[in-house]
Amino acid sequence: MSSDQSPEDNLIARYFAPLATDPGALGLSDDAAFIKPAAGCELVLKADAIVGGIHFFLDDAPQTIAAKALRINLSDLASKGAKPLGFLLTLALPKDIGEPWLAAFAQGLREDIATYKCPLFGGDTVRSPGPVMVSVAMFGSVSDGRMVRRSTAKPGDKVFVTGSIGDAALGLGLRQGATWPLTDAQREHLNDRYLLPLPRGALAETVLHYASASMDVSDGLVGDLAKLCRVSGVAATIDASRVPLSAAAKAVTAADPAALETALTGGDDYEILCTVSQAKVDRFRVAAMAAKVAVTEIGTITEGEGARFHDAQGATLTFKRTSFSHF
Amino acid sequence: MSSDQSPEDNLIARYFAPLATDPGALGLSDDAAFIKPAAGCELVLKADAIVGGIHFFLDDAPQTIAAKALRINLSDLASKGAKPLGFLLTLALPKDIGEPWLAAFAQGLREDIATYKCPLFGGDTVRSPGPVMVSVAMFGSVSDGRMVRRSTAKPGDKVFVTGSIGDAALGLGLRQGATWPLTDAQREHLNDRYLLPLPRGALAETVLHYASASMDVSDGLVGDLAKLCRVSGVAATIDASRVPLSAAAKAVTAADPAALETALTGGDDYEILCTVSQAKVDRFRVAAMAAKVAVTEIGTITEGEGARFHDAQGATLTFKRTSFSHF
Repeated sequence: MSSDQSPEDNLIARYFAPLATDPGALGLSDDAAFIKPAAGCELVLKADAIVGGIHFFLDDAPQTIAAKALRINLSDLASKGAKPLGFLLTLALPKDIGEPWLAAFAQGLREDIATYKCPLFGGDTVRSPGPVMVSVAMFGSVSDGRMVRRSTAKPGDKVFVTGSIGDAALGLGLRQGATWPLTDAQREHLNDRYLLPLPRGALAETVLHYASASMDVSDGLVGDLAKLCRVSGVAATIDASRVPLSAAAKAVTAADPAALETALTGGDDYEILCTVSQAKVDRFRVAAMAAKVAVTEIGTITEGEGARFHDAQGATLTFKRTSFSHF
Repeated sequence: MSSDQSPEDNLIARYFAPLATDPGALGLSDDAAFIKPAAGCELVLKADAIVGGIHFFLDDAPQTIAAKALRINLSDLASKGAKPLGFLLTLALPKDIGEPWLAAFAQGLREDIATYKCPLFGGDTVRSPGPVMVSVAMFGSVSDGRMVRRSTAKPGDKVFVTGSIGDAALGLGLRQGATWPLTDAQREHLNDRYLLPLPRGALAETVLHYASASMDVSDGLVGDLAKLCRVSGVAATIDASRVPLSAAAKAVTAADPAALETALTGGDDYEILCTVSQAKVDRFRVAAMAAKVAVTEIGTITEGEGARFHDAQGATLTFKRTSFSHF
């Protein structure tokens, strides 16, 4: 009798089954997996996908494509105060994808699974006449009823962001041919931030304890803050000069002031944007420092509607578009 | 200030937010959703995707594409003894997909969400230069530790399948131009079975209580039974003449005996294949009858390796290929 192993089965056995280290994944040998949140916890669910030629370049290293697909979802979990538990992976592959690409992709998954303690639970591998598409459904754990929402910011709360804003959008600008006067190290920093998000999982517990509302910045700070304000029924006043920029982003905006708009409205930051009541600001800062995640206060939530950005002199900034959309 | 609503946001608000009826989905207004299995239960996880031109025809009605994407996942849940709780949806759309297509797709989702009590929890909508791709991550609920595996069949167990086998593969044959002598009703039956899987959720509880092992038949009965045998470390002897065929499939195989191989090895059945210990066979049959799902005993699990199919005279059948793969 001939083997019952299809090419897809062989691929799963070779590259993906070794990544399914949780007992509930059953080594990917079953139709489904099972998972149970710890006592007193519930699951946080998130699905985000990336498509070749849209969200990444077709010649990006397969390791970084794998890492990006996981990290954009891990970033959402961190912003909700949740810890990762694992993920399902749907991988659409064109015919011309060969074993070396798959081996490198699986290696990228393996490294991030180890780093973020986030094993594979299952998924699907399909052929597609289109480009590579990587769709991840991520599960995290959070204390019952404690998932930090977007909709709970209150007037008087302070607005914080983690890390630095705009690096990925400027890195994309470089990939698309922008000729800013940068050192090699600055250029590499921006390129890396575009290729590889740095999800702020280390801040998840701090967000859980101290943030009144939270989301991740994936479609641009200006637009994402506007979304948070809208669902919270509040406004925000932001001092754009306090928005944290990396040395590389500062070098770009010094040479090309118009690039500040790209930094503030471009996508792919994968930083946490959260609000903290004034009573908790000090404890939030101390906890963030202990977690070794830089946080910067950039403004205040107020009554009203919309997110207003002003410069250091108080003049309102206007933007051609408020957020980035691949759609 | 301009609207912060991107085209993707508008599409989600219009077509998908109304489908997110569980409180944990937060009306799709947040980065993530939350879910908690009932006390004493754990979550069953499954992700399966379909791609235009591969798993469905590009001119299929959008309602049936939506339904197929959900039902292939619901079929897995049923085979594991699990009840659906909800799903995440990743939808890749080419530029030329317009509002009428989306409205019809959402209508297909809406109907199946109502039928299967399986609301939308979130997801992602992305542009793709490729064809429509629908990726679903489905969550179900099952009593702790009770998810029915593939790997637990025992020698002496009886092998059962639900419904009828081969209809979808023969329906695909019709779509691809096969000219079998069929009545219009038979033709419609096969076409429908290809377009619209009928997940056997009504049998989930019966499977949970009485099956020793279970999986759904999605890649062809012969190949899927071989997989079950391999992971269970057993063999199976199947009387092919007992495999349940619809009147339409019988008409095809009467006219074209070679089509029996298509029926037994073709994909997309979405029936349940399960094994039941002899001590439980009677109770299994009674429960299946109460659930109004037809079940047919087709053979026996034995010691050894591989799944042997024989005809009514006992002669071993051989197949050119044992299972269908889109990959």
